[in-house]
Amino acid sequence: MTKRIEHDFLGEKELSPDVYYGIQTLRSLENFHITGIPLKTEPVFVQALGYVKKAAALANRDLGVLDANIADYIVKACDRVIKGEFNDQFLSDLIQGGAGTSVNMNANEVIANIALEMMGKQKGQYEFCHPNNHVNCSQSTNDAYPTAFRIALMNKLTGYSHTLGALADAFEVKGEEFKDVLKMGRTQLQDAVPMSMGQEFKAYATNLHEELSRIEDSKSLIAEINMGATAIGTGVNAPAGYADKVTMYLREVTGLDLKLAGDLIEATYDTGVYVQLSGVLKRTAIKVSKICNDLRLLSSGPRCGLNEINLPAMQPGSSIMPGKVNPVIPEVVNQTAFYVIGADLTVTLAAEAGQLQLNVMEPVISYALFTAITYMTNACKTLREKCVLGITANADRTKEMVMNSIGIVTQLNPIIGYEKSAAIAREALETGKSVHDIAVKEQKFITQEKWEEIFTPSNMIYPRFIQ
Amino acid sequence: MTKRIEHDFLGEKELSPDVYYGIQTLRSLENFHITGIPLKTEPVFVQALGYVKKAAALANRDLGVLDANIADYIVKACDRVIKGEFNDQFLSDLIQGGAGTSVNMNANEVIANIALEMMGKQKGQYEFCHPNNHVNCSQSTNDAYPTAFRIALMNKLTGYSHTLGALADAFEVKGEEFKDVLKMGRTQLQDAVPMSMGQEFKAYATNLHEELSRIEDSKSLIAEINMGATAIGTGVNAPAGYADKVTMYLREVTGLDLKLAGDLIEATYDTGVYVQLSGVLKRTAIKVSKICNDLRLLSSGPRCGLNEINLPAMQPGSSIMPGKVNPVIPEVVNQTAFYVIGADLTVTLAAEAGQLQLNVMEPVISYALFTAITYMTNACKTLREKCVLGITANADRTKEMVMNSIGIVTQLNPIIGYEKSAAIAREALETGKSVHDIAVKEQKFITQEKWEEIFTPSNMIYPRFIQ
Amino acid sequence: MTKRIEHDFLGEKELSPDVYYGIQTLRSLENFHITGIPLKTEPVFVQALGYVKKAAALANRDLGVLDANIADYIVKACDRVIKGEFNDQFLSDLIQGGAGTSVNMNANEVIANIALEMMGKQKGQYEFCHPNNHVNCSQSTNDAYPTAFRIALMNKLTGYSHTLGALADAFEVKGEEFKDVLKMGRTQLQDAVPMSMGQEFKAYATNLHEELSRIEDSKSLIAEINMGATAIGTGVNAPAGYADKVTMYLREVTGLDLKLAGDLIEATYDTGVYVQLSGVLKRTAIKVSKICNDLRLLSSGPRCGLNEINLPAMQPGSSIMPGKVNPVIPEVVNQTAFYVIGADLTVTLAAEAGQLQLNVMEPVISYALFTAITYMTNACKTLREKCVLGITANADRTKEMVMNSIGIVTQLNPIIGYEKSAAIAREALETGKSVHDIAVKEQKFITQEKWEEIFTPSNMIYPRFIQ
Amino acid sequence: MTKRIEHDFLGEKELSPDVYYGIQTLRSLENFHITGIPLKTEPVFVQALGYVKKAAALANRDLGVLDANIADYIVKACDRVIKGEFNDQFLSDLIQGGAGTSVNMNANEVIANIALEMMGKQKGQYEFCHPNNHVNCSQSTNDAYPTAFRIALMNKLTGYSHTLGALADAFEVKGEEFKDVLKMGRTQLQDAVPMSMGQEFKAYATNLHEELSRIEDSKSLIAEINMGATAIGTGVNAPAGYADKVTMYLREVTGLDLKLAGDLIEATYDTGVYVQLSGVLKRTAIKVSKICNDLRLLSSGPRCGLNEINLPAMQPGSSIMPGKVNPVIPEVVNQTAFYVIGADLTVTLAAEAGQLQLNVMEPVISYALFTAITYMTNACKTLREKCVLGITANADRTKEMVMNSIGIVTQLNPIIGYEKSAAIAREALETGKSVHDIAVKEQKFITQEKWEEIFTPSNMIYPRFIQ
Repeated sequence: MTKRIEHDFLGEKELSPDVYYGIQTLRSLENFHITGIPLKTEPVFVQALGYVKKAAALANRDLGVLDANIADYIVKACDRVIKGEFNDQFLSDLIQGGAGTSVNMNANEVIANIALEMMGKQKGQYEFCHPNNHVNCSQSTNDAYPTAFRIALMNKLTGYSHTLGALADAFEVKGEEFKDVLKMGRTQLQDAVPMSMGQEFKAYATNLHEELSRIEDSKSLIAEINMGATAIGTGVNAPAGYADKVTMYLREVTGLDLKLAGDLIEATYDTGVYVQLSGVLKRTAIKVSKICNDLRLLSSGPRCGLNEINLPAMQPGSSIMPGKVNPVIPEVVNQTAFYVIGADLTVTLAAEAGQLQLNVMEPVISYALFTAITYMTNACKTLREKCVLGITANADRTKEMVMNSIGIVTQLNPIIGYEKSAAIAREALETGKSVHDIAVKEQKFITQEKWEEIFTPSNMIYPRFIQ
Repeated sequence: MTKRIEHDFLGEKELSPDVYYGIQTLRSLENFHITGIPLKTEPVFVQALGYVKKAAALANRDLGVLDANIADYIVKACDRVIKGEFNDQFLSDLIQGGAGTSVNMNANEVIANIALEMMGKQKGQYEFCHPNNHVNCSQSTNDAYPTAFRIALMNKLTGYSHTLGALADAFEVKGEEFKDVLKMGRTQLQDAVPMSMGQEFKAYATNLHEELSRIEDSKSLIAEINMGATAIGTGVNAPAGYADKVTMYLREVTGLDLKLAGDLIEATYDTGVYVQLSGVLKRTAIKVSKICNDLRLLSSGPRCGLNEINLPAMQPGSSIMPGKVNPVIPEVVNQTAFYVIGADLTVTLAAEAGQLQLNVMEPVISYALFTAITYMTNACKTLREKCVLGITANADRTKEMVMNSIGIVTQLNPIIGYEKSAAIAREALETGKSVHDIAVKEQKFITQEKWEEIFTPSNMIYPRFIQ
Repeated sequence: MTKRIEHDFLGEKELSPDVYYGIQTLRSLENFHITGIPLKTEPVFVQALGYVKKAAALANRDLGVLDANIADYIVKACDRVIKGEFNDQFLSDLIQGGAGTSVNMNANEVIANIALEMMGKQKGQYEFCHPNNHVNCSQSTNDAYPTAFRIALMNKLTGYSHTLGALADAFEVKGEEFKDVLKMGRTQLQDAVPMSMGQEFKAYATNLHEELSRIEDSKSLIAEINMGATAIGTGVNAPAGYADKVTMYLREVTGLDLKLAGDLIEATYDTGVYVQLSGVLKRTAIKVSKICNDLRLLSSGPRCGLNEINLPAMQPGSSIMPGKVNPVIPEVVNQTAFYVIGADLTVTLAAEAGQLQLNVMEPVISYALFTAITYMTNACKTLREKCVLGITANADRTKEMVMNSIGIVTQLNPIIGYEKSAAIAREALETGKSVHDIAVKEQKFITQEKWEEIFTPSNMIYPRFIQ
Repeated sequence: MTKRIEHDFLGEKELSPDVYYGIQTLRSLENFHITGIPLKTEPVFVQALGYVKKAAALANRDLGVLDANIADYIVKACDRVIKGEFNDQFLSDLIQGGAGTSVNMNANEVIANIALEMMGKQKGQYEFCHPNNHVNCSQSTNDAYPTAFRIALMNKLTGYSHTLGALADAFEVKGEEFKDVLKMGRTQLQDAVPMSMGQEFKAYATNLHEELSRIEDSKSLIAEINMGATAIGTGVNAPAGYADKVTMYLREVTGLDLKLAGDLIEATYDTGVYVQLSGVLKRTAIKVSKICNDLRLLSSGPRCGLNEINLPAMQPGSSIMPGKVNPVIPEVVNQTAFYVIGADLTVTLAAEAGQLQLNVMEPVISYALFTAITYMTNACKTLREKCVLGITANADRTKEMVMNSIGIVTQLNPIIGYEKSAAIAREALETGKSVHDIAVKEQKFITQEKWEEIFTPSNMIYPRFIQ
């Protein structure tokens, strides 16, 4: 087979016979070399482009602006794209100029050529199925691209949400396992009052479970699409009724609860939903990072740290210090969180840079969100599998620390008052004596019997009010 | 009157007889000199502390852990704090160490001394009403402070939301006013297709109206409080039933729909809601900044810019260039947005820095959120009153630009096809001729009659599909 | 005295007879209500405006474009402004639109009216000394404002640098004090190898001393000014030779080593130097925050934490937990760092938003940098005086932790090899035995004599290589 | 060949016979799946690891702690790694936990096995050349890793600096080309005073050339290394004289002007230099983004925008709008800048998260800096080649805008005074008349002769002061 020549209004280019994309994709490959990461690394996005083009073809056919036979071939071609058969044809760099035009044209060209091939035509015989006139019929990049992006995000979030939920569940299980492990609660890194390690781990579960609702909130906002807006939201060149029809078909082919935006002018340039989603990812990253900070702190030691818990040993921790094992899994998760927080700033900057009827910076938003979701998903999976599930507690040590602490004096407040309690605390601190010895033996503020009533493990974890 | 001496477990200090606060507040005034901005600049926060202490006193009284007479005086003292009579006694620097302890003690001390005075006692006679034992009864800073903070935020957001809504409404009104002003829509700063200026301004309204829902979402999350958690969420030193009762009273005295958190351990350290709220403020800031960028661009000129709209002239624009008038109001709003986005990062960092059972960084979160809301409210009010309400359109110029543009060729696509349209566009670009002259007169692709059918103002704003 | 009327090309306004500012300042006070923080809170900026106006008057006089008598009165007026006599007349909100025009006009008007008064004229008799024609002669806001801003920054940085240096010195002193305190070094929060606490504190000193060089780097970049650029850098309306002459005078009156920029077009819009300075402030904030994190960690406890050092007790730490003392000073410093990092983002956004021949967002940059420097200066002073100077070491405890640690096994590597060392480490970890007992008594890998040769305090702090 | 078994103190693992890495690398591959981007994508880093290991072997040999024969084979193995022969063996995910231990061990293992093979041994026969005892001799990850990272950065920055300089030069050339193109200068997007387009483009050159000095500043800070610090900076297990010797060898093998840090404790945990470098990258990104914003604005149109310049047409701009060409190259550069600014935040967060004697977050710092430098280099190259070099000016249009503007009235100030000038400006604005007609014909403020003296192109670009 020989190379084919394609042209656009800037001139012509030779294309290798085996590629399904056309001249405009080729130009984008020549123009954009920033990340080196091609579109195909996000198959969920390629699939979403297939959904959009399919729904558009069906709507155009119904409305009589696209020949039924051509529409039929486009639909078949889209089905193959949706299945992932042509992922390797989606090569635009994830960060490009042109507000997604290169991505949209990549899809238009690949689908046109697949359709042509299925029709028995040669690639490039666009008179039979044209990337712009047929595949892109009644569309602009400015509605097709963000709609595909949103569908991709929704599907990607489903997987992320599942993984995050499993992580939260793992903490819940550990919370149950550790429910009788008495330990010192700490505020401001200072000994505070007792609690159970189960409470601590269940709180991590609660903390992360909340994020699932926030992700669902985001998904319901992302579900608002602008198909039919075409170039700027006025719907120029789309037939009457198209917007509703294509949205209906898109719901059908994706199985997602998509809605048409009420104000298409606004919907065409607004990137608020990406900011919102990025904020949700950031919030979760902050929480996960805080939890990992805790895990690293609680497992510090083994002899010169808190040493309350043991994380599974994953690899030797040092090239020089024998026997050292480090909390490498929480560490990698912390770092992922820092990436996600940085990516949120990228989204912020890109969103603010929108001008007039379009935000041309959507590609970098897609780069930031796709990588953030991928990395967070990987981090949550790693944290669960390689760390949380294998955590064990040093219950003897944590109990000993509680009983040896000054912090338990707080529970004497209601009985002997804040000022006497403070006096005990001061003496304990200065002399190294135990609260018990000062309160019961020396000062005789309370009896041994009362002491034992108050300082049961259960009463330290779930304090009854005793006066 | 003579100075009074107070003591705590670190020693004693002399207090001026006229101040209502006590030794711990005094220590905080000595310790924290960072911003120089005192607590009283946020009267909504002082008021919220009054609410919290009042509700606690009522609950404690009901549960028999606080003498009814003392409780009564505390309630009366709180009522005066709530009214703002003692704002000048709340002097802690907005950024302090101690996770809010200084703020909580400032409230405890001031309320105790007001109560003492109302009882006919001297300030400092804490045996009759003690800051810790009575005013702070069944509380810790770690529940009282964040609860007051949340109440303050909810009330502050109500005002902000109102101002933002009014700004959105102003854009809506302008949208109606400009609904027949034909203008060129632009994507990527390049001429795209026609639209009406009314659509553009209504889109701003839509864009901002959405934010009101996001603020409501935040408020419903903020409404979750942790009263009764005391030190770390185990409820140590609070009587049985207290958490529910104090929440009930707090709902009553504030009129807000507050809810008790399900997991008090988690609720005591979690700052996720502040991240969420900060994200909402940031999102709105991004949107408002984008709108101001547009307003500045659309009013650029007067002779060498777009000159589509006129902003009200607010002040001479230059100390050297006579007659220059600048878009100073959008400019100040842009800058406010940059502040808010920066403040969001401060919140992010503070949230991530939480450790174990408490996030000690809440004061800087309160600083960031309070200033962000205040500045945004001021900016939205300024933008509405001093800019949006007075915007006028240069309708003749915008129409002339449309008719002289190449972008209108898009509307010929469905009739003559993308390729002929592109040829017209290219020729127009190269020769400076109008699309009309090329399409109708020279190439005769369509008749003058057809041209007039297509290019009515109404059809350019709300394009009918014509084939 | 009666009110005076002033006019500008937008109309006229009544001014109170006692104010020195004029109509344009009044307009700015009406237009900008964002932060509520007036210019006068930065007296160093007011002073710098005085310097700029004085130098300009002298240069204009020399070049014959300003009457010598008027120039003389302007100089006298400026001297009074420089001394701070009229700080209360500088009231523009720190964040304004107009790229500093309001600030520049505030200075022009106040100086004109002081000069008029000194001439024996009435305020407002601008025919004798005019804010624009005389005080602002050969200037634009676009050169006068950034030049004054830079002078203010340089002077402000001098104080900051001094305070930061003193903090670094305090760590140095502590390093010397703790030089014989043996303690466990930790990497990744895991016990690593021994060191002295003196090394740790001296490293803090080194870490911060480096910042002083970075601040000096910034000052040398800030010293580049654009006087004579006037509106956009072409120097329109400034007489020949003016730029060099005013720079010379400005060096003289400020005592600062100012330089004229080589490319005045670029210098008029470039805000790179503010980004650079903000980056330096951020870097120091990061370092100080890291140090405070360490101090909080090392002082954690007292019984359930590391408890290596004691921070001075500054205030009771809890409204509920008697005897609790928190690391409130490092905490407030951490929070200040978070503010500074947020402010850096504000500067970043503002710098990126510059367009064409000017960056209109300079006022918010000034707000961010002024507050960042002020807060950091306050934080460093607070940290030194209220924390570092009073830190004490728990040398017995830290030594005991070292000798009880597994980490010391690393020092056996060169003698018995990594694998035997690792075996000892593993056994110690599993059994709780000491390294000494396993290595010397049980396994007899080395003799007691050799052990004592290796594990001297000095050899643990400054390890000799022993094979 | 059969699989080989390797063990470490956590157990044993089977390795494929063809891989050069060992058990610890394998564990890292199992543990860390975050980005999916392997170490080998940064060959400059692999090379730098080779340099470090080579210099260490030479120093160890000289000091008698490493057998000369083994050292010789390690050096030979390193030379092959330096040449890039084994890049495919460096597979650790760019973001890992363990503070770089996996990367360091990847190098140690690969080099050991190459050496073994060259010795005629089997891979895994570590008794002859051991990853830890020999290749890592006198080193810890905590000095070897950051040193290699710094060498990699220095080499990477050299390429970046070259590309950025070429971009600046391209603007310089355009500045020369456009030096006689008269155009309106704009401040705050409002018409200001005339200038030449050459001045505008030369200012871009100046703006970027400054960055080259900032990069050099960074390189001189990065050049400070901590070899010999070993685990925490005390130099435990390194022989006397090693630090200086290895630094000397490293200078020799790399050809870089490396220096040994003065305080090795500090140098081992400090990440300030990465913050500094990231700040420099961010500053350049901000500048490049501002320039791209300008280019997009100046090329806006073609009929409804400023249309002062033409950017090379790189690809069709729309899937729906025929003939539309967008500024896709500046757009992609803007987006790259947003990435870099986000990456700076990641670095910031990671730097702040360092604790005690090590910053465990260095891997994500390396990820952020490597990608930021790569993307910026790509963006600068793209901007120069595909945009700047081909920019053309619409000189007739820009001149016409100047002569038709009101802004030129500023040049009348020194002759007729600010107030008359303002009156002309106001009338021009209200009536649409030209400044010339009002000033010369109607008001006769100046003669036609004087007008012509003032408003020569040269005098508008380089204004002489005329009174």
